[in-house]
Amino acid sequence: MKFKQITIIGVGLIGGSIGLAAKKHKLAARIVGVTAHKGTLKKALKRQAIDFGTLDLKRAVLNSDMIILATPVDKVISTLRAVSPNLKKGCIVMDVASVKESIVGFAEKVIGRKGSFIGAHPMAGSEQRGAEKANGNLFKNAPCILTKTIHTDAKALKAVHDFWKTLGSKIYILSAKEHDKKISNISHLPHIAASCLSLVAAPSSLKFAATGFRDVTRIASSDPDLWTSILMSNRSNVSNDIKNYIRQLEQMRRLIVGGKEGALRRHLIGAKKKRDKLLIKGR
Amino acid sequence: MKFKQITIIGVGLIGGSIGLAAKKHKLAARIVGVTAHKGTLKKALKRQAIDFGTLDLKRAVLNSDMIILATPVDKVISTLRAVSPNLKKGCIVMDVASVKESIVGFAEKVIGRKGSFIGAHPMAGSEQRGAEKANGNLFKNAPCILTKTIHTDAKALKAVHDFWKTLGSKIYILSAKEHDKKISNISHLPHIAASCLSLVAAPSSLKFAATGFRDVTRIASSDPDLWTSILMSNRSNVSNDIKNYIRQLEQMRRLIVGGKEGALRRHLIGAKKKRDKLLIKGR
Repeated sequence: MKFKQITIIGVGLIGGSIGLAAKKHKLAARIVGVTAHKGTLKKALKRQAIDFGTLDLKRAVLNSDMIILATPVDKVISTLRAVSPNLKKGCIVMDVASVKESIVGFAEKVIGRKGSFIGAHPMAGSEQRGAEKANGNLFKNAPCILTKTIHTDAKALKAVHDFWKTLGSKIYILSAKEHDKKISNISHLPHIAASCLSLVAAPSSLKFAATGFRDVTRIASSDPDLWTSILMSNRSNVSNDIKNYIRQLEQMRRLIVGGKEGALRRHLIGAKKKRDKLLIKGR
Repeated sequence: MKFKQITIIGVGLIGGSIGLAAKKHKLAARIVGVTAHKGTLKKALKRQAIDFGTLDLKRAVLNSDMIILATPVDKVISTLRAVSPNLKKGCIVMDVASVKESIVGFAEKVIGRKGSFIGAHPMAGSEQRGAEKANGNLFKNAPCILTKTIHTDAKALKAVHDFWKTLGSKIYILSAKEHDKKISNISHLPHIAASCLSLVAAPSSLKFAATGFRDVTRIASSDPDLWTSILMSNRSNVSNDIKNYIRQLEQMRRLIVGGKEGALRRHLIGAKKKRDKLLIKGR
């Protein structure tokens, strides 16, 4: 066993899947889950994603060697503030949020010398939610980005690296700033794009939606609360990416209206080539 | 057997799948396939999507009761012109292209009283191509739009309706104009949206692409030649839809930049509700 006790705060799809995966790989002697609501706790216990459950945030972290913040993005800061006085000396704290710049600096400050903070972003998930959908293989072959700052403790980074490695993730280490920029491009913008496609779809056209439309809008079915807080936490990157996207769309529109067949084809070939690379990598 | 001979012109993914499905449901005593290239013909014969294959367009249609034009959109008009002198009296001709306004009027004129033309658009397909990927169940539960004009022969419409019904499609009857408008909204715009997302994705971000990005860009891997001709045949509808989409994106961008959390959430909830309806319908 790598850890005596791991505490997972927030046991939804991601928190629950971490619990299942950590148990499967025997990473902790005991896994404690904390939630704000009894119902959520029951679901996580029923799914056997955690060994013990509690609503008492402060007690839950007291003896933990690793604390995983798996709450929605907008709850990470307040949760960090709430647990910081009760941390065990030398513990490792990590979050799993989709934005990093707004979290990492605050976390390092509030934890101070009591423990070490590493930002983690496992790039797995689904439009589904809740511990009942948790899956111990969710992180297998999925990218997981860890953040590193000038304050990062090398041992803690190694431990978190090994943790996600054991869960099957492909690990990348970036600064929080780089993370937020790249993820805006590859995850936050696509989310906006899918949601806007759903919004502009005419209700009378929906019955003609084929698999193409279904796939392209799938992520628009994700949790609106979660995504509101993600997008609000990465405003300037997302705004820049939307602007770029609009420029690209307007360029395509002009090629179509102007009958520029050759140029349109070249754009579509470029788009296909980039997309096909993902297939070759088998992802 | 409903038809003595069905001729399929163009035996790629769609043509080949029609052949397989028609054979499975015993809709024709013989199915003849025509292509411009020997290699394509061999693949279709190997896949048993057709009973006989030929490169001779004119001979292939001579004795056919039903002729299905399954070439790329930009070849439909020239193919119609080539086969029209050799049509069997009373035959039914249908295309399966994704645009209709530019085809239907011409087809009715060139066929005249020799036979009947019905435009059909089976809304199935995939980013894959070629007869080797043909699938006899491709049209099952998929929408299929048939076009109707003031010249449409009721008997021919009924026969084409029954044909697709037997293949498992859900059938809708629209004017060519309505068809092109609705399909721009639910199929052509999403294609542009996916392709532009692929184009603006930073190469250094691609390794962080999770299932969300893969799904949202899947259709960007489709055949660029096919899509160039589809988009070029539906210019004004596609241009209007791109403009609407850009307006929606710009509105979302402003909400994000302005920190309008409540309004952003309402937009995301609206997008989710519309997308979730597709799930409820099991499609």
